[in-house]
Amino acid sequence: MKRKVIVIGIGAGNPDYVTVQAIDALNRVTVFFIPDKGTEKANLARLRRQICERFIPGRDYRMVDFTTPHREKSSPDYAKDIEAWRDRVEDVYQRLLMEELGDDDCGAFLVWGDPSLYDGTLRILEKIRSKGIFELQYEVVPGISSVQALAARHKVALNRIGESIMITTGRKLAEGFPNNVDSMVVMLDAGNAFKTVDGDLDIHWGAYVGTDEEILVSGKLRDVCEEIERLREAARQQHGWIMDSYLLTAPRGNEDEE
Amino acid sequence: MKRKVIVIGIGAGNPDYVTVQAIDALNRVTVFFIPDKGTEKANLARLRRQICERFIPGRDYRMVDFTTPHREKSSPDYAKDIEAWRDRVEDVYQRLLMEELGDDDCGAFLVWGDPSLYDGTLRILEKIRSKGIFELQYEVVPGISSVQALAARHKVALNRIGESIMITTGRKLAEGFPNNVDSMVVMLDAGNAFKTVDGDLDIHWGAYVGTDEEILVSGKLRDVCEEIERLREAARQQHGWIMDSYLLTAPRGNEDEE
Repeated sequence: MKRKVIVIGIGAGNPDYVTVQAIDALNRVTVFFIPDKGTEKANLARLRRQICERFIPGRDYRMVDFTTPHREKSSPDYAKDIEAWRDRVEDVYQRLLMEELGDDDCGAFLVWGDPSLYDGTLRILEKIRSKGIFELQYEVVPGISSVQALAARHKVALNRIGESIMITTGRKLAEGFPNNVDSMVVMLDAGNAFKTVDGDLDIHWGAYVGTDEEILVSGKLRDVCEEIERLREAARQQHGWIMDSYLLTAPRGNEDEE
Repeated sequence: MKRKVIVIGIGAGNPDYVTVQAIDALNRVTVFFIPDKGTEKANLARLRRQICERFIPGRDYRMVDFTTPHREKSSPDYAKDIEAWRDRVEDVYQRLLMEELGDDDCGAFLVWGDPSLYDGTLRILEKIRSKGIFELQYEVVPGISSVQALAARHKVALNRIGESIMITTGRKLAEGFPNNVDSMVVMLDAGNAFKTVDGDLDIHWGAYVGTDEEILVSGKLRDVCEEIERLREAARQQHGWIMDSYLLTAPRGNEDEE
């Protein structure tokens, strides 16, 4: 027996970011696996359900909620702890696939944004598949990432003409702004890493981009830095969680043409 | 009078990559501006027309073809030549908007992939708007980029866990693989820049990704390097143009967790 799964990128924020390919995929699914991820829980789980209700009219499917293992972040042995945590996550996914999927089923994980960007689902499935305990076949449907939503709402290009873009995390940015990059998109910044960056940079920042709660700020980093910090804190208080990202760009020099 | 334009990302390759938001946008448009871009002309113009026919049923709209100025690449004064060329491009767009859009019109540029990634439309419109010759209002609809299509078809994540990704061009890669990056997506590589890269890297390469002509190759760069070069050349001969990109990744070390 072959177990079938689709990893569906549902876009970041606006349900209208869903693609035709994703809608077709949604309509082949019989079992949706819905993770319970701490603070994001209520919001993201609700969005996933809304998308199913809107785009799958008059068809039967099951929703299977599952709890993702909690990760202890204060372990004395960080590397070992990570490894153990990954094993637990794999075990949860493996059990779901084995117990919930029959021969005629098609399972799905709905991924916020794009499954290829800072999401672990593809890695977990590949790991389970490679173990060979059961036959697993999966496909991937790309989705509009929060990076693209940010750029679209600010109406800016991510790259300077002919130049590179780096996509990174707040933790990496806090280690320093690399000298070979002049456009940088920062995701997953829990600690206001933009405050640690020196230099004459422009920032395009957005939270809850594409939703009714969207907040956008842009300008010289040094001018809007404190405003963004204040808005982030207020939004986190109000909503209980925050989903934001930003683009940092060096001022224009002699740009080459693409 | 206010001129209205939508820059619509139509995704890269597969027409099913079109989003619900893009379909809604397409159905508000009265004038589509269709560029004639050299060798890509036949293929991309056809795709744009197919998308309009498929997603805009029973509504009237106009198609306005325009020719993008040719750029002289062998000028003795490169920087000056680029500047002159950009001015000519702006003039073409400005004339289009002034002559073709009336008060009740909504114009559109359909951008292959995502308008925020290696596309000049947003920059040109912002430049025209900032001149203030007429009132210009534009919005941006993000689309699935060729980078995401590549990752989805290979079923891989772009980033290593918690690490950065660089998106760059073949020309930049030919200058050297940066030492602070272990995942790199390369677009617009006309000259097999992957051949210039040393080290133990994995490559995921794809051409015409998401279309019927799709070709995918992955493996150790040193093992598949020549095969990719051969396939690129053959495809370019066969189709008259090539649209490809690839992901280069360093072997896994001690990855941090996102």
